[in-house]
Amino acid sequence: MRERNIGIGLLGLGTVGAGVVEILAQKSASYEKNLGFSIELIKILVADSHKTRDIQTNAKITTDFIDLIDDPRIDLIVEAIGGETPALEYIRKAIDSGKHVVTANKEVIAKYGPELIKHAVDNGVGIRFEASVGGGIPILRPLSRDLLANDFNKITTIINGTTNYMLTRMRLQNENYSAALEKSKSLGYAEPDPTADVEGIDAAYKLAILSSLAFKVRVRFEEVYVEGISNLDLADFVYAKELGYVVKLLAIAEKFDDGIQVRVHPSFVPMEHPLAKVNGVQNAIQLSGDLVGSVILEGPGAGKSPTASAIMGDIFEAAEAILEQKKLPPYPFGGNAAKIQHIDLLHSQYYLRIKVKDQPGVMAEISRALGDRDVSLASVIQKDLAVLDGSTEIVVTTHSALEASVRDAIASIRTQDAVIDVFNLIRIEEVIT
Amino acid sequence: MRERNIGIGLLGLGTVGAGVVEILAQKSASYEKNLGFSIELIKILVADSHKTRDIQTNAKITTDFIDLIDDPRIDLIVEAIGGETPALEYIRKAIDSGKHVVTANKEVIAKYGPELIKHAVDNGVGIRFEASVGGGIPILRPLSRDLLANDFNKITTIINGTTNYMLTRMRLQNENYSAALEKSKSLGYAEPDPTADVEGIDAAYKLAILSSLAFKVRVRFEEVYVEGISNLDLADFVYAKELGYVVKLLAIAEKFDDGIQVRVHPSFVPMEHPLAKVNGVQNAIQLSGDLVGSVILEGPGAGKSPTASAIMGDIFEAAEAILEQKKLPPYPFGGNAAKIQHIDLLHSQYYLRIKVKDQPGVMAEISRALGDRDVSLASVIQKDLAVLDGSTEIVVTTHSALEASVRDAIASIRTQDAVIDVFNLIRIEEVIT
Repeated sequence: MRERNIGIGLLGLGTVGAGVVEILAQKSASYEKNLGFSIELIKILVADSHKTRDIQTNAKITTDFIDLIDDPRIDLIVEAIGGETPALEYIRKAIDSGKHVVTANKEVIAKYGPELIKHAVDNGVGIRFEASVGGGIPILRPLSRDLLANDFNKITTIINGTTNYMLTRMRLQNENYSAALEKSKSLGYAEPDPTADVEGIDAAYKLAILSSLAFKVRVRFEEVYVEGISNLDLADFVYAKELGYVVKLLAIAEKFDDGIQVRVHPSFVPMEHPLAKVNGVQNAIQLSGDLVGSVILEGPGAGKSPTASAIMGDIFEAAEAILEQKKLPPYPFGGNAAKIQHIDLLHSQYYLRIKVKDQPGVMAEISRALGDRDVSLASVIQKDLAVLDGSTEIVVTTHSALEASVRDAIASIRTQDAVIDVFNLIRIEEVIT
Repeated sequence: MRERNIGIGLLGLGTVGAGVVEILAQKSASYEKNLGFSIELIKILVADSHKTRDIQTNAKITTDFIDLIDDPRIDLIVEAIGGETPALEYIRKAIDSGKHVVTANKEVIAKYGPELIKHAVDNGVGIRFEASVGGGIPILRPLSRDLLANDFNKITTIINGTTNYMLTRMRLQNENYSAALEKSKSLGYAEPDPTADVEGIDAAYKLAILSSLAFKVRVRFEEVYVEGISNLDLADFVYAKELGYVVKLLAIAEKFDDGIQVRVHPSFVPMEHPLAKVNGVQNAIQLSGDLVGSVILEGPGAGKSPTASAIMGDIFEAAEAILEQKKLPPYPFGGNAAKIQHIDLLHSQYYLRIKVKDQPGVMAEISRALGDRDVSLASVIQKDLAVLDGSTEIVVTTHSALEASVRDAIASIRTQDAVIDVFNLIRIEEVIT
């Protein structure tokens, strides 16, 4: 029987990697007492070994990946580099050499998850990636294990903390997009290049993972319809409030008889919706299953300690498998290709903000353009705005309508003489209970 | 190698048992396709085999427990009888005979969980009980696995759906306690004898399980301080609203340097608290951990399908262990006896409603009784009530104070000439973020 000891090799010493190092330094003794086995951090791979770091560890710091792979004391590789290169190659090689893998890498898992899982199974090891979605919130294991008996029909989520923080500021502090972005950068919530967050790409990676696991089909990242938050205007927040909504960047996966809708976009969320109260950097995931009904998991979606908490949960599970010499059951990720429904086929309520010349008959023309395409109005707001240029804004919300029809109506509205511009088309989310 | 087939013996065909039968009838084929093994319901134990049931099953219905125990095709016993007798004896015998056990029985697990887990380990099998707390919400496995790296300092929960439904009605429909109870009975949410729900006993069972797992010590059910909701008056709801609170039956476990507080009682919950929005039969559990911060899990706390969903999750996990001939890792439940802190040592804010004769100087006497014991007032409400008997009500809330001091002050207040009665002492919960 092998010693009750698990050797870890860590790739990367950024925020997440440093979190893992700190936890192991502080808690190894207590884990050993509770679990009956010890976890030893043996080697850490960094890009630059000369960089000054405020890290206390007995592990060997190296710049040579092969130094970890060739070390027989290392049972498990924790990948905390992020991004595709070189993380993907390192994960593949770790599996090749018979080491289990725990990763927080949403991009690699969204793009290559099924291939990596198969590769791990073929090599008699396992791969876990709880930290790739929802930070510290337990979501992938509950979805894949606890709730496995369910057929899910919808997943409604806030899974990007940076944009949720920004949208919360825009709503509560009346800050515009640029000010909210600067504030997020100054707090370290937004990267120097914030594109992946604000344009919805980060959320799309996570949604591809979640929807693949929930629906047991392969949803590719590129198939997720994505709109970011950079076109939102403070005016949209004012109207949202007036209409009883808050603005959230939702990532939604929904199953229909003829395909799956996967989409990331700003949404008007009714105040009574459970996700309307999720503010700041918090994340939340609402799962709608045929047996369980609606379950909501909420918590910190990022951050050093929460992310490391999720990584440690994966390490513990893998450690048990290693010590018992049993397989780590693969997550059900990697079924047939999903049949994706085009966004044009979505049925939703919509919000539209239109800048028009302040002249008679405009509203009638807009109504006709919508009505001719079976899009019926739910509400209209036309404010007596103090404008210098003779323009005013008309805001309409619709009853549930086909997106293609709404887009076609907008194209027609744009051609009208009195219409200066059509701003955001924002989908309105319904409450599921 | 054994066949990829798991045989189930089910004890009990009430709501929960019928849910398991229905799910297996509807979904067995899809589970087999996804999981690569089949689950067969072989025998069902009932108390009365002649009772007419609207159940479709190929399983043999029997009244003889030994008929299940002696059947070598049965790998796993699902206990869905509830209560201590005869469920406890059946669970023990199932383990004796080398069968895994999945149970929804909060009473048996709260009272005998550690012993049963040890008994299972000694017999090379496992026991799982996800459905015993929070119905369909994944909570015990996330707590014991995903979040295992954390040291928890507080668990704040709504874990009794019946009372949460009643309190929601009392608040939103202005129904009194009796009317809300009758409504709950008519909907099947409350039992004909509602004592276990309304007096907080059901919540105390669940809290004993949750706190034992979270704090890795043994918290006994009898050690949980319990107050039910039957003394609440509509007046308390009116004052709560005026003060910015909602009334909830909270079950709270909190760790201090010198012991653990475990308590179930009505609480005033600030509107901005995440549990304030949990209405109707929903349950929610807020876990505060040193790494993850605050995580909230919310969903249906009872009901046929949600409970069966949780049971199925346990069955799948046990099935993998059976097929791999590996052990099912025991939950960390059964440490040393917890050091329980007496409720007198609680520090909390409090709400007090006092019926007094409408005469000068009353408020001064009440203030002095509190102030003499270092209990400082946060707010006072004295309404000009239209009363016939010359009495009026004084409502006070306090800043954080020691419970023993508040109780001592109440004893003193009761002796005052002008005081007719002191009604509910209700603890006010703070918001943790």
